[in-house]
Amino acid sequence: MHSILRDCRNGDLAGLMEAAKAEGMTPEALAGNIAAGRTILLKNARRPYTPCVIGEGARVKINVNIGTSGQRCDPAMEIEKANAAIANGADAIMDLSTGGDLAAMRKEILKLPIPVGTVPIYEAVRRAGNVIDLSADLLFKVIREQAEQGVDFMTLHCGVNLEVVETLRLDPRVMGVVSRGGSFHTAMMLASGEENPLYAEYEYLLEILDEYEIALSLGDGMRPGAYVDSTRLAKSQEYLTLGKLARVAHARGVQRMIEGPGHMDYNEISYNVKMIKEITGFAPLYLLGPLVTDIAPGYDHITGAIGGAAAAAAGADFLCMVSPSEHLALPDTKDITEGTRVAKVAAHVGDLSRRRDAELPRQAAMAEARRTLDWEGQYALSLFGDHARAVHDRDGACETCSMCGDLCAIKIVEKALEKKI
Amino acid sequence: MHSILRDCRNGDLAGLMEAAKAEGMTPEALAGNIAAGRTILLKNARRPYTPCVIGEGARVKINVNIGTSGQRCDPAMEIEKANAAIANGADAIMDLSTGGDLAAMRKEILKLPIPVGTVPIYEAVRRAGNVIDLSADLLFKVIREQAEQGVDFMTLHCGVNLEVVETLRLDPRVMGVVSRGGSFHTAMMLASGEENPLYAEYEYLLEILDEYEIALSLGDGMRPGAYVDSTRLAKSQEYLTLGKLARVAHARGVQRMIEGPGHMDYNEISYNVKMIKEITGFAPLYLLGPLVTDIAPGYDHITGAIGGAAAAAAGADFLCMVSPSEHLALPDTKDITEGTRVAKVAAHVGDLSRRRDAELPRQAAMAEARRTLDWEGQYALSLFGDHARAVHDRDGACETCSMCGDLCAIKIVEKALEKKI
Repeated sequence: MHSILRDCRNGDLAGLMEAAKAEGMTPEALAGNIAAGRTILLKNARRPYTPCVIGEGARVKINVNIGTSGQRCDPAMEIEKANAAIANGADAIMDLSTGGDLAAMRKEILKLPIPVGTVPIYEAVRRAGNVIDLSADLLFKVIREQAEQGVDFMTLHCGVNLEVVETLRLDPRVMGVVSRGGSFHTAMMLASGEENPLYAEYEYLLEILDEYEIALSLGDGMRPGAYVDSTRLAKSQEYLTLGKLARVAHARGVQRMIEGPGHMDYNEISYNVKMIKEITGFAPLYLLGPLVTDIAPGYDHITGAIGGAAAAAAGADFLCMVSPSEHLALPDTKDITEGTRVAKVAAHVGDLSRRRDAELPRQAAMAEARRTLDWEGQYALSLFGDHARAVHDRDGACETCSMCGDLCAIKIVEKALEKKI
Repeated sequence: MHSILRDCRNGDLAGLMEAAKAEGMTPEALAGNIAAGRTILLKNARRPYTPCVIGEGARVKINVNIGTSGQRCDPAMEIEKANAAIANGADAIMDLSTGGDLAAMRKEILKLPIPVGTVPIYEAVRRAGNVIDLSADLLFKVIREQAEQGVDFMTLHCGVNLEVVETLRLDPRVMGVVSRGGSFHTAMMLASGEENPLYAEYEYLLEILDEYEIALSLGDGMRPGAYVDSTRLAKSQEYLTLGKLARVAHARGVQRMIEGPGHMDYNEISYNVKMIKEITGFAPLYLLGPLVTDIAPGYDHITGAIGGAAAAAAGADFLCMVSPSEHLALPDTKDITEGTRVAKVAAHVGDLSRRRDAELPRQAAMAEARRTLDWEGQYALSLFGDHARAVHDRDGACETCSMCGDLCAIKIVEKALEKKI
């Protein structure tokens, strides 16, 4: 059975060329990182798209969640949101739809030119009608169906097991469980007393994922949902489990990454990221946030960017966009555009930390374009050049800018230096 | 002559009561910090307004710059911007006007209920007609006139001296000087070969400031203007000079703070902030940014928030709002609203680091309001509650939110726990 991970172990680099080039890495270096489990390549033979490298040596990537809800189900808007995300730099899309015809929605999303992820338990619970009626069989059936459709990566909360529920009881949290997938598994276990099937039948799950070349995103069902919950024990219990599961998946040839918190004090981010990396054998880390305060709803794209930049600088590899409507409403297209751009800035701050040599030429060129007041050059070097041009030109496309006009510091010192130095 | 600093040294706490209460500090603690030069109180007897505490023990404050330019001169819009800033949490306003009737503009701004700062050299250069024609006499005359008008704090680039110009030559920077005030003084020195009058006649300057109870903001004329310039020597030369000048001002009874960079790699922020603090005798630090990348024009409120949060967590006391139009255009009212909110979030992240015990009850209450889906409670606890309400209610003022609807994780686990735990 074909597997990128096995190819890399065997020194077969043919499938890595395009991706390595895009990252400015040699195929050998990329293969080495993948073989070591420190980097994954999203590349599913079932559909064509730009492959995406996540992990050590690669640029920090961003994922954007879209999807209908029971309360607001407008598939056309979700496609529009996905396209807005891609236009603003999203590297992957997760379809988290829970309302309407889920398979039809996914079919449309899978036409996009970038990797697509899902959380299969959402559909499984919808089809079961009620979370406590969901059987292991149905859950695995949904996973297989979504795999056949061509999904590239799946969030599966394999680490939400009975031991985690015990840990939650031992060290309770104000917000309990806020991960939707985590809450489904917790409710199932509380109702039946039985182990999470994704944990109990992990080997079987890996067989399916391996068959379809799907990357496993080990979900963080225990991510803290509140600032005051951030240091409670449940999340660390889950990290430890995920560290074991990550090693097993890697040994079986299945690519995997780890999902991380959540709500967290700014000063806790760096050590959490480094510790999760260590515990999980330096698997790629996919961060949801972290959100550094609870009291800024409406501005959680900012709390997420502040946390995301800190996390990326500390070693996180993949940031999940947080939209301005987080905690309040399903995001609309404007929210997705804004959230994606802000996440892109945070990811880029990570790149400046981890790939400084690769990023310096662009910074140097930007400084030169600014010094010479070369506006076209500045737009071309900017993350969002068209937007920058529109802001500059709103007061007229002048040589300086409407902030300083003739009192431009750059021009004043240039002039003084020309005469004197 | 009355001086808050001398009062604090003498144990006269009468003038501190209101300010101490607002910060949750005892008047004794506040007086101790002010006497040590680690904290300043903006409180000018010439006009009534809410006093503002900046420095150790106090919440991180934010300043918002407004002001006309030669290219865009609309005093009514500038007043509107100032009011938008105050409505969204600005603690101080700086009037950086350079276009139109500057004294009239300032008169209007001084009617605002919060501290107002200026950069007197802007008006002085305007009145001289040309920077190289500006005399020391005119500069001091403008400072005195603005002081008489009731300005509360002034940015004065006393550390931009001949030695700094030599340091710039020794270790040149791509962007040279980007501080407008810094560029004026540099151009004056280059043209005349004479020392910066604010440095040469610093004792005289302090006399004026002392007479009018004005806090001195020691301007960072050498703040790096580009990512690639951030580690060049000029800024450190200036810090060192500012550290000496800060000590002299403090000894003379004049309250002062230090302005800091600028453009800077994310990983350089913490050590810069801590080092500036140490060099300047732990004077309050007023940060412009730091902006952590150059390639996000149009989103520099985000690069500033990421840098500002890092700086505030490391010890910066006062953040200058960076607007979305930074580097591109004079901000409009919408830019000021957005920039102020984003800066407020960054400052609040600093508060969570430096005043965690004082901030925890609000975080705990927010977690409880979220757990119980108490939306009114959430809005009341939020930094921007009205905005949060508008986002939530756009899809209907429902019990959960349109993101998850009935699949609300909080509700699912609550229900499961009710039956099982």
